[in-house]
Amino acid sequence: MSKIRVAVAGYGNVGRGVIAALKNNPDMEIAGILSRNPERVKQTCNDVPVMQIADMDAWLTALKADVAILCGGSKDDLPIQGPMLAAKISTVDSFDNHSRIPEYFKMMDDAAKESGHVSVISTGWDPGIFSMERTLANAFLPGSRAYGFYGLGESGGLSMGHSDALRTIPGVADARQYTHAVTDAIDKVRAGENPQFAPGDMHTRECFVVLEDGADQEAVAEAIRTMPGYFAPYKTTIHFVTGEFLKEKCSGFPHDGLVVAAGTTGNGNAASVEYRCKWQSNPEATANVLVAHARAAVRLANENRSGAFTILDIPPAYFSIHSKEELLKKFM
Amino acid sequence: MSKIRVAVAGYGNVGRGVIAALKNNPDMEIAGILSRNPERVKQTCNDVPVMQIADMDAWLTALKADVAILCGGSKDDLPIQGPMLAAKISTVDSFDNHSRIPEYFKMMDDAAKESGHVSVISTGWDPGIFSMERTLANAFLPGSRAYGFYGLGESGGLSMGHSDALRTIPGVADARQYTHAVTDAIDKVRAGENPQFAPGDMHTRECFVVLEDGADQEAVAEAIRTMPGYFAPYKTTIHFVTGEFLKEKCSGFPHDGLVVAAGTTGNGNAASVEYRCKWQSNPEATANVLVAHARAAVRLANENRSGAFTILDIPPAYFSIHSKEELLKKFM
Repeated sequence: MSKIRVAVAGYGNVGRGVIAALKNNPDMEIAGILSRNPERVKQTCNDVPVMQIADMDAWLTALKADVAILCGGSKDDLPIQGPMLAAKISTVDSFDNHSRIPEYFKMMDDAAKESGHVSVISTGWDPGIFSMERTLANAFLPGSRAYGFYGLGESGGLSMGHSDALRTIPGVADARQYTHAVTDAIDKVRAGENPQFAPGDMHTRECFVVLEDGADQEAVAEAIRTMPGYFAPYKTTIHFVTGEFLKEKCSGFPHDGLVVAAGTTGNGNAASVEYRCKWQSNPEATANVLVAHARAAVRLANENRSGAFTILDIPPAYFSIHSKEELLKKFM
Repeated sequence: MSKIRVAVAGYGNVGRGVIAALKNNPDMEIAGILSRNPERVKQTCNDVPVMQIADMDAWLTALKADVAILCGGSKDDLPIQGPMLAAKISTVDSFDNHSRIPEYFKMMDDAAKESGHVSVISTGWDPGIFSMERTLANAFLPGSRAYGFYGLGESGGLSMGHSDALRTIPGVADARQYTHAVTDAIDKVRAGENPQFAPGDMHTRECFVVLEDGADQEAVAEAIRTMPGYFAPYKTTIHFVTGEFLKEKCSGFPHDGLVVAAGTTGNGNAASVEYRCKWQSNPEATANVLVAHARAAVRLANENRSGAFTILDIPPAYFSIHSKEELLKKFM
């Protein structure tokens, strides 16, 4: 059987994770890398074709890809690249701006339906696996609420978004932000209280900040603590550190999370479900999930389905390399 | 919108759980109870129609059910009732004899395809949710193995099958069996060792046994410890207790379990996923999952699908009471 050929759009952390993940999935292979700056990518990657993403007809002809995995950012890349590529090929992406998912779904659904392709949007671990676990917890325990917690381990989970936010502050040379779950809040959910939380009740934030020469430490700290949305609602700890410290102690992209819901069955018997994941590399974890969704996208396309899909619209078997017979025999 | 009308076949612990669960799902309602012994059921349940399950045409006409949830046992009831009902109506069941699932699937697929109905088989929490989590763990972490552990809490999980097995031993008046997970084994899996386990490495078994008058305690203990499959492969603890003890301390059907898989992403970064559930009432938990699958069965049937399905063949959104718009907005 011929392998599923995957074009990887973007060569950042997630894109490199996808390339590594494809090697662990024997039914798939990389067709090539699509980039806005192919010459730069070629400097570090010369064993696969690298092509200009905007030259659609050229790479569609040359790479013969079955599906493209879009590894760009949700803010600037995907709203442009998503519909552009969905007009030509089946796609998978990790669009993660939760409040704009309905709007992005519509945009991708229109493009993919018109072109007759399949676009799986907003997958990874959250949105993605966690969305599915929230939906199933609610379906199997009606009346319960599913809560998401992040950074359960001692060192917390590295938030790229919050690290980026820190780096926008004048005087900050570099920074990392670790999210910590509040243990008491998890206990309340597990106890079936279905509590009303403000964001600050569930998580705290720990910042490691390298100042620029001559920067005003107090002014930077004040700017962090009062930043709306990102830090103002949370208990925030700030450590001012050296660039060396950041390099030695804050490398890598560890993250973890928990979906937890508790309620009752029947006439008041306690019931709870939890899903937990733990990743030494957050972008590689996202990449692994994207690759399994690329398999599903191709299968859906082979059934002449078209339009946008989320993980909620796809039967779990479609993600698996195993045949229906194997799944019935070994996984049920 | 009219409610989904559910016929409940069987009035044991799971059947009563289904009746209770339907009250927590406002889009569904009970159409009636089907039993081999309607007169006996009517003694405790007189607010819904109770009909003889064998009088198919009579209850199909009278109850106008959209789907039947089959709550009988996997050994004697479902292999007969399953195909019989699938020939006339969409069905959902919790057939849980893992090694015979492929054979049962075929039998139900043939019956349901011929009649043009949908039969969702082998669902609940294991097989069911756990089957799905095993499949997804393997798809998202290729090369990892998913392990199932049961009885993680201090008092363990009540196994009906093992309790039944104890009661078949001459001299045993009544008994309960609690399964305990071996904590060290879980730790090995979490550490990414993907170990090879014998069944006895993962679980121990704790028995509470009430003897019949004059029974030979040593002979009963020997019969338990040497029972193939059920107890011989496990470290087994036996407590001989009074009927009063059993009634006071061993009532209810608590159970819990864990699916856990650990592996790596990319070039060797550690990654693990876990799903845990905890039920004060095991049969009610199974019932809750069955009811959500009845919703999915009706939706599949409304799309003119037919044949047998497992949880692996159904998009998660089909289990939810919420609309596609709500799911995109609130659950993604």
